[in-house]
Amino acid sequence: MRIAYLGPEKTFTEKVTRGLFPTEELFPMQPIRKVVLSVEENKMDLGVVPIENFYNGPVIHTLDSLVKCTSARVVQEKALKVVHCLGALKGYQQITNVYSKDQALEQCDSFIANSFPEVTTIATSSTAIAADYIAKEKLMNSAAIAPKEALERAGLEIIAEDLCPNNSTRFVVLGRGYTNPTGDDKTIIAIHPLARDEPGVLADCLNIFRSLHINLEGLHSRPDGKKGYYFYIELNGHENDKDVKTALQAIKSSLDPENKYGGVVRILGSYANSHWKDEN
Amino acid sequence: MRIAYLGPEKTFTEKVTRGLFPTEELFPMQPIRKVVLSVEENKMDLGVVPIENFYNGPVIHTLDSLVKCTSARVVQEKALKVVHCLGALKGYQQITNVYSKDQALEQCDSFIANSFPEVTTIATSSTAIAADYIAKEKLMNSAAIAPKEALERAGLEIIAEDLCPNNSTRFVVLGRGYTNPTGDDKTIIAIHPLARDEPGVLADCLNIFRSLHINLEGLHSRPDGKKGYYFYIELNGHENDKDVKTALQAIKSSLDPENKYGGVVRILGSYANSHWKDEN
Repeated sequence: MRIAYLGPEKTFTEKVTRGLFPTEELFPMQPIRKVVLSVEENKMDLGVVPIENFYNGPVIHTLDSLVKCTSARVVQEKALKVVHCLGALKGYQQITNVYSKDQALEQCDSFIANSFPEVTTIATSSTAIAADYIAKEKLMNSAAIAPKEALERAGLEIIAEDLCPNNSTRFVVLGRGYTNPTGDDKTIIAIHPLARDEPGVLADCLNIFRSLHINLEGLHSRPDGKKGYYFYIELNGHENDKDVKTALQAIKSSLDPENKYGGVVRILGSYANSHWKDEN
Repeated sequence: MRIAYLGPEKTFTEKVTRGLFPTEELFPMQPIRKVVLSVEENKMDLGVVPIENFYNGPVIHTLDSLVKCTSARVVQEKALKVVHCLGALKGYQQITNVYSKDQALEQCDSFIANSFPEVTTIATSSTAIAADYIAKEKLMNSAAIAPKEALERAGLEIIAEDLCPNNSTRFVVLGRGYTNPTGDDKTIIAIHPLARDEPGVLADCLNIFRSLHINLEGLHSRPDGKKGYYFYIELNGHENDKDVKTALQAIKSSLDPENKYGGVVRILGSYANSHWKDEN
């Protein structure tokens, strides 16, 4: 199999992809849309992209790319723990600068505010580059935030571990097939209420889910650029479950009773619920 | 006045801050949490941070930092158009690499997929650095995505303009005061249904808003790390409007009828609706 993943190499996305597919041929690609299109256009068999980080929230580009697809769908999800550490050169002096990727600096913002309130934070293009830069330039007043291995590889001493507790990223595997229900699944859908945009449309949808006892795991509104909104909803259940089918049909009938518009409810995939667990 | 903004300098956040406060003293800070805390802890009078980008979605760190505050609140919002262009050295040859900040690469993903499907994209720590790097290294097969001024300052030729239509970032000004209603306001709230986490809690809240004809502009769920969720909701109306007061009181009573928990509904600020318009 040929498997695309969001590059560059040596990132968490490569790590999770290699863990899922240890013997397959992997192809790093950027940006996210390119990975999604490679599956949609049959150039790759599967693609792996992030969909949510515990600290940074949803990866909107993954959702916005998937909603435009007709054949690429989510077929699996996998969480990976993201453990950031702080490293500096041996014999480091008072730390005045902290280097890291901007997202990692944001993830560790509580740690920085509490432990190093006066430091200047400087964004680099990756966490590994932050570690390498400190080593190369011999910066004795600087520290880097990166995974432990990256800090050690650059020869830095670990001065604090696990800076952002509970940090995980949830990745999705994209394919062109349909999954079978496992009994503990999730389905991600996009609702685009073209026909009706008065207040209350979302309340109607949620009332339908409630009446069928379907629990929601996530909900995000997105402007569609035409004064309307998409809603991305991740719900418990498989698209082939009777209640889920009934709910989605009821929402379709409610939003587009004469079936004039089409596409008001789109299923982006059904897949086994990982419960954010980082295990094989 | 002393005004903090999300740094570094020469970014869109500085531009919008300078536009709003042309004669005040500005202090760049990173990460977002530091800007928010500087207002919360009375070190700065105001702070300016992004809250949503049309392509990238909500800036979760702004919401997650604000929800922990007791005195810092949103007092104003301001949108800024984000126009990205593509630049290369004069006499450039076939473009094989495109450099830019990762968020800009994602914002321009449709342009890249359509116009340069085969290029390799390379993330830099800022858009300006991408432009400068191409000039410094004399890369004839590379292009940079950056604002026009940054490309021109680096001596690059503009080869495509406005790569991501409709792109705007919405910024918020944080202060410690309360605003007066203008008649066209928005309020951002966080709902944390500690007491009741069965399905349907969000449907109840939305039904209350609907019954009072309160329109919603945005809704995002966030895991709270304890198997529960926050909901961030941006609604039309001012916190002093009668209907908004009634709605928020009804939600409080519904989620926490005996007032045992407190903080199930938090107001993060009320402010004049900018309607994403980029004008003064």
